[in-house]
Amino acid sequence: MAFIDLNSDVGESFGNWTMGDDAAIFRSVSSANVACGFHAGDPSTIARTCRDAVAAGVVIGAHVGYRDLAGFGRRFLDCSATELADDVLYQMGALSALATAAGGRIQYVKPHGALYNTIVTHETHAQAVVDAVKAFGGDLPLLLLPGSVALARAEAAGLRGVAEAFADRAYNPDGTLVSRREAGAVLHDEDAVAANMVRLATEGTIIARDGSAIKAEAESICLHGDTAGAVSMAAAVRRELEAAGVDIRSFV
Amino acid sequence: MAFIDLNSDVGESFGNWTMGDDAAIFRSVSSANVACGFHAGDPSTIARTCRDAVAAGVVIGAHVGYRDLAGFGRRFLDCSATELADDVLYQMGALSALATAAGGRIQYVKPHGALYNTIVTHETHAQAVVDAVKAFGGDLPLLLLPGSVALARAEAAGLRGVAEAFADRAYNPDGTLVSRREAGAVLHDEDAVAANMVRLATEGTIIARDGSAIKAEAESICLHGDTAGAVSMAAAVRRELEAAGVDIRSFV
Amino acid sequence: MAFIDLNSDVGESFGNWTMGDDAAIFRSVSSANVACGFHAGDPSTIARTCRDAVAAGVVIGAHVGYRDLAGFGRRFLDCSATELADDVLYQMGALSALATAAGGRIQYVKPHGALYNTIVTHETHAQAVVDAVKAFGGDLPLLLLPGSVALARAEAAGLRGVAEAFADRAYNPDGTLVSRREAGAVLHDEDAVAANMVRLATEGTIIARDGSAIKAEAESICLHGDTAGAVSMAAAVRRELEAAGVDIRSFV
Amino acid sequence: MAFIDLNSDVGESFGNWTMGDDAAIFRSVSSANVACGFHAGDPSTIARTCRDAVAAGVVIGAHVGYRDLAGFGRRFLDCSATELADDVLYQMGALSALATAAGGRIQYVKPHGALYNTIVTHETHAQAVVDAVKAFGGDLPLLLLPGSVALARAEAAGLRGVAEAFADRAYNPDGTLVSRREAGAVLHDEDAVAANMVRLATEGTIIARDGSAIKAEAESICLHGDTAGAVSMAAAVRRELEAAGVDIRSFV
Repeated sequence: MAFIDLNSDVGESFGNWTMGDDAAIFRSVSSANVACGFHAGDPSTIARTCRDAVAAGVVIGAHVGYRDLAGFGRRFLDCSATELADDVLYQMGALSALATAAGGRIQYVKPHGALYNTIVTHETHAQAVVDAVKAFGGDLPLLLLPGSVALARAEAAGLRGVAEAFADRAYNPDGTLVSRREAGAVLHDEDAVAANMVRLATEGTIIARDGSAIKAEAESICLHGDTAGAVSMAAAVRRELEAAGVDIRSFV
Repeated sequence: MAFIDLNSDVGESFGNWTMGDDAAIFRSVSSANVACGFHAGDPSTIARTCRDAVAAGVVIGAHVGYRDLAGFGRRFLDCSATELADDVLYQMGALSALATAAGGRIQYVKPHGALYNTIVTHETHAQAVVDAVKAFGGDLPLLLLPGSVALARAEAAGLRGVAEAFADRAYNPDGTLVSRREAGAVLHDEDAVAANMVRLATEGTIIARDGSAIKAEAESICLHGDTAGAVSMAAAVRRELEAAGVDIRSFV
Repeated sequence: MAFIDLNSDVGESFGNWTMGDDAAIFRSVSSANVACGFHAGDPSTIARTCRDAVAAGVVIGAHVGYRDLAGFGRRFLDCSATELADDVLYQMGALSALATAAGGRIQYVKPHGALYNTIVTHETHAQAVVDAVKAFGGDLPLLLLPGSVALARAEAAGLRGVAEAFADRAYNPDGTLVSRREAGAVLHDEDAVAANMVRLATEGTIIARDGSAIKAEAESICLHGDTAGAVSMAAAVRRELEAAGVDIRSFV
Repeated sequence: MAFIDLNSDVGESFGNWTMGDDAAIFRSVSSANVACGFHAGDPSTIARTCRDAVAAGVVIGAHVGYRDLAGFGRRFLDCSATELADDVLYQMGALSALATAAGGRIQYVKPHGALYNTIVTHETHAQAVVDAVKAFGGDLPLLLLPGSVALARAEAAGLRGVAEAFADRAYNPDGTLVSRREAGAVLHDEDAVAANMVRLATEGTIIARDGSAIKAEAESICLHGDTAGAVSMAAAVRRELEAAGVDIRSFV
């Protein structure tokens, strides 16, 4: 029987500022990327998010990012390899304590925002993230972009690199994502998106922007929860996957 | 044979700013209160400090504080019990990951600065710290002021409260510290300080400011390392304790 | 003809986090308390808010607070008088540059959150805020709670202290606010609130929680904009004031 | 008579952490680059630094940087043009209020660290800094690297770009700085450095690393004050310039 993981970012509120509808997202996903305080997520938000994840039976992952609250971790920061590795390890440890207190534990790592995008190609930062995950212990899997330098480095270090697809993003015929600078990069048609994700989970292919079917071997699908439309789309993807007999479960 | 612990604050540099002579302090103490990033200590400073502590055979404690870099954790912050407990847990987890990667582990907790002073009397914040230490797991001992509310709360929760004395502070005849607002509160005479600490370790008494000998049951002595004079005093205290046949060792 | 000022907090977004419906609030108020970056408000948010205030013809005030993003400035921070005065001056200067670039300027100061509440009684912090406003130059008026220490200190220093009333808060018969810890402290009935504010503007009295009419000499009414209900209430208060022939205009 | 400006970074302490010997530097320079709080400098440090600058008769410049306390502004941060311009304007305003309260005022702007280096070539960030300085008003001069994109942008916007030389850096025969990655990039011989700076001020040339004399048209010389050696070199440069009859005075 076909199965796939659904992941989404949660715990991205900070102090008095809220973001996303985490409660709704926990009904749709099997894996939760929990912010660790450097791009979003204060300790009490993280604690509450971990309790909610445990209650929902959702696997907890560390959503680690650059130290940049003002930029929400979406801006490249040219830190050294040592700084980045230590920053990642610090974030993992902090989340781990709060997850453990909530009755859960970190089971994977997903880099956030600019860090995620940077380590598609940036050798030093990719290796620093891998080094931190190794140093943390337990050889946790890393959720990454297929074909990225980070994924190769993770596997070279003996870690499992888990490739993910993006439900609401258009794909080029060569399997890369259509740049956000191009029209049509972000998809809004729930039915089409859900159908494409069912195809991914059942056949291992997705329909690219030119209509061709391309091979895609993602073990997880990234969903968003920061807008009402995103929450609705996440629910639609899950519903259609289940209707097609696909088992939604974590990759760990 | 008499024995006692010597503790000091380390890892209080931040980014490009350095503080203290940690290398010298590691030669004098048996326990290191390592800053956790909320009042001082960036992740790379913490990582390096943990490696140095492990190399020196010094026990690592979590020096947790209020979230206040600009005030170095020396200003009371009226946070809620939940915020404080989660902040403390976050800091413990972060330090724990870096300590573990360095081959060590957290073995006790010491509140820092305004938090240390606040929980001498503040029931809510005292309990929040105790709750965080319980939630972390492992029932780590807490290094605290004798007679403090925090120490009572720790013991009521089944944690070990370890009382400490301050080498360079004058004591009132009733066993309390002379307020820093009074002249003579801080001691600078190395020989007198060292002699008093030998007395503490061997007889369980110290000489108060009026010359009377008072009972003091500290299991640890707090030394400072933020000035050249402090580092020299720390070395003198250790030297005289050893000369008197006192074994310097951690309380854990 | 009767007139009164309406003020509200704006510019409280931070980076990727949004707060409040500033566009709607600018249609209701004559004075905008603009966050200055210490409790909320990143520079680009502040810049945009100032441009919007200028476009709406709304007077800009500096909403200064304790340095506490994680607590949104709602937690007392026991900083020194010097630290507080310098922090306030820093915030005023930062806002001033952005306001000036937007074609406006700071015309008053309102302390935020815990700072506002603290200086109702805290002599040192009240004086520090007053000192900062004096040091800034131009002798800007301070928007404060009637009867507060801060208001007395402002006037003793030759500054104008402007008293404000709170539209959505219940009053005790002695003119003080009903504590938020008591039921009924926050009012939700738009019609009753608006009618009470019309009474304030036209007769100088408000109806207290026990039904008695009490004297109130506020020159400004504080409205909120952080929820849909608050925005609607702000609009209702303005509408009813205008319907009663009250001129809505800044106190400066 | 020959004249030249001497500039140095000051006000780079933060809270409990001190950096540099500002008192010594104020005896050597004519212009002080005062940190504005984003890479270093808390409000009270800035206030004190401005008072000291005024007392020493030293001109105050705004040392603006990326928002990165943990990295001391030495790490490139890929912020947008809008974010950077608003961040720079915020810093200028904050410093301006504190400088004015100290009896001084901002008279020029010098970008710090990674921002300084980035805008040697980065068109967008260079323009953003120029835009912020224009928006601040008063058309303040910008202290920059000769030949940099930023200097060209400043002049294109009608601002004065002031070129500076670095006393303790070796120059290539083409007038560029020897990269810090190469041996001999940083100079430590006080006599040689001072002699070279006298040559710069009196003849408009400096001796490059290969011994050739190259043309250099700097109006200011950057000195450092963060080590004992740097402070001593700064004093030596000033002493030898004065001995050679060069007038040390600000470029403003």
